[in-house]
Amino acid sequence: MSRTGEPAVKTDCSKGRFLASIYNPIQADLVEVDRILIEQLDRNIPWMERLLNHTNITGGKRMRPALLLFSGLACGELGVAHHQVAAALEMIHTASLVHDDVLDHAEQRRHVATVNSEWDNKTSVLLGDYLFTHAFHLASQVDSLTAIRRLAVASNRVCGGEMKQNAWSGNFKMTESDYLQMVSDKTAELCSCACFCGAHLSAAEESLAEGFSQFGQNLGVAFQIVDDILDLVGDAETVGKTLGTDLKNRKPTLPVIHSLSQVDAKLREAMLAELESDNPGQEQVMEWLESTGSVAYARGRARQCAQSALDFAAELPAGVGADSLKLMAQFVLERTF
Amino acid sequence: MSRTGEPAVKTDCSKGRFLASIYNPIQADLVEVDRILIEQLDRNIPWMERLLNHTNITGGKRMRPALLLFSGLACGELGVAHHQVAAALEMIHTASLVHDDVLDHAEQRRHVATVNSEWDNKTSVLLGDYLFTHAFHLASQVDSLTAIRRLAVASNRVCGGEMKQNAWSGNFKMTESDYLQMVSDKTAELCSCACFCGAHLSAAEESLAEGFSQFGQNLGVAFQIVDDILDLVGDAETVGKTLGTDLKNRKPTLPVIHSLSQVDAKLREAMLAELESDNPGQEQVMEWLESTGSVAYARGRARQCAQSALDFAAELPAGVGADSLKLMAQFVLERTF
Repeated sequence: MSRTGEPAVKTDCSKGRFLASIYNPIQADLVEVDRILIEQLDRNIPWMERLLNHTNITGGKRMRPALLLFSGLACGELGVAHHQVAAALEMIHTASLVHDDVLDHAEQRRHVATVNSEWDNKTSVLLGDYLFTHAFHLASQVDSLTAIRRLAVASNRVCGGEMKQNAWSGNFKMTESDYLQMVSDKTAELCSCACFCGAHLSAAEESLAEGFSQFGQNLGVAFQIVDDILDLVGDAETVGKTLGTDLKNRKPTLPVIHSLSQVDAKLREAMLAELESDNPGQEQVMEWLESTGSVAYARGRARQCAQSALDFAAELPAGVGADSLKLMAQFVLERTF
Repeated sequence: MSRTGEPAVKTDCSKGRFLASIYNPIQADLVEVDRILIEQLDRNIPWMERLLNHTNITGGKRMRPALLLFSGLACGELGVAHHQVAAALEMIHTASLVHDDVLDHAEQRRHVATVNSEWDNKTSVLLGDYLFTHAFHLASQVDSLTAIRRLAVASNRVCGGEMKQNAWSGNFKMTESDYLQMVSDKTAELCSCACFCGAHLSAAEESLAEGFSQFGQNLGVAFQIVDDILDLVGDAETVGKTLGTDLKNRKPTLPVIHSLSQVDAKLREAMLAELESDNPGQEQVMEWLESTGSVAYARGRARQCAQSALDFAAELPAGVGADSLKLMAQFVLERTF
């Protein structure tokens, strides 16, 4: 695998395959993170085994564990604590996905049926709670109050972000700045926390660890904006989840927010009526977004964030960790084209 | 207030009023716990203020904070950490109530409308998540890894207990031992954690702190059994929540489990058919329970647990903390008559 920072990203469009190639240097560590995830969860609880298969807990992109491990490698050696906190982060992420699926009524996630489509909402709510609290149980085993505290704040911000998203649901008066704040909390915070903890657990000084935190923040925001774009214009097969759910759930996303800010009062009113209706027409909305260049605008915003992340990674001393972070930033940047 | 361990419990049947009188010595501490609860939660999140009013977060029995504070007092002085962990415990308890209400479709809790009856399930799920994670955020501020870890394990056991309860819902093959394990996890664990943390934060040695933990465990189990009994035979006005929900939600409780174990195969089959039906008839079930003396049996089991707790408290050196724990155990014991 090239360590020059010039990977052939464009030749491999499959997200999963490309990430897997970036993850080569941490294969053994990711296996260890998976082992912890599987081993930790209590098999005495009825259905746990089958429920976990449905969350596909070890089958996601594992972006947060990877960010933590690479940030750790960029600052020093990896140890048990890195694996534990990485597993805890993936648990929190999975918990929030499980509850998200309850709220979105999504039927597919990570290419498998979601817990709530196969089981019921009750089971999904409890499983999410179990995963949230288990993440803290696991993280609290680590001998670093700083890491524990960071993880606790981060997971709380994620939930605050979800509440904001819920409160804004069906309300298209949301501004770009509201949106960015929500996305920072809801999505980027765990990436930021992963990078901070990775660096911190490898004994990075606080200011450097905060730099990693900012890197993760930028990467996460870029990633979410791209995800929002793909929900509008992606291909279900490649993306691996039900698409068009944002419009259906009347979630304001950046392309839509931008488009609304570009049109005259009359068109705006028509757009709002459509967007706030029970079943907004995807084709009609896409036509509006195209007329205002709003998908392109959102791509541009994502690109700025990914570029800031890339700039930070490029400044790090060369090595497996730094180079891989650079590849991850580049991967997100490439997804914007 | 009497400190002799012979309080006139029977003369005051109102749970709220009696607990308030026990709480006299920690009034100022409970005010501080409430202040932390209110101050901590982020007002920038839309609706937070109104949501919090609906959880009535500072309006519950505050048994867990009180247990923590009294256990702390029984072993030494109270400090900031006691107040913070007490607030975190109450947050976890409230989070689990909020999610419980989603699952039970309860309409009233703590004498006010539940979040999900006034709002929607979506909001309840997110608010519960926010409270869970905020509890860890708050608890992780404390400089005691031992307390943080205990709280994390405890909250995870609570969720595991809730999952067990859900898995057993509508399945009346549950044995008494299954029931006790579930109740230990679901209800008693936070009481146990409260007593342990109170003692530990007042620098009690580990073996003594474990004694407090066992005290809380016994008290919690007794309390839950009594709650189950009151859901069958209580008075909605006094108990302060919708009654009869256990039968409606087909939750096996101790009286029912006992009754099923006492009858012949034919009656058992008839009982199971009724209990597992969509809308079990409360009067019919009560008749069966009376014929097998099962409410009395459950009271007896609760009494045993409350008595063990009382015995532990009675051995502690006299003082406000120990005496108040004794009063709380006595209060639970009295509820069983």
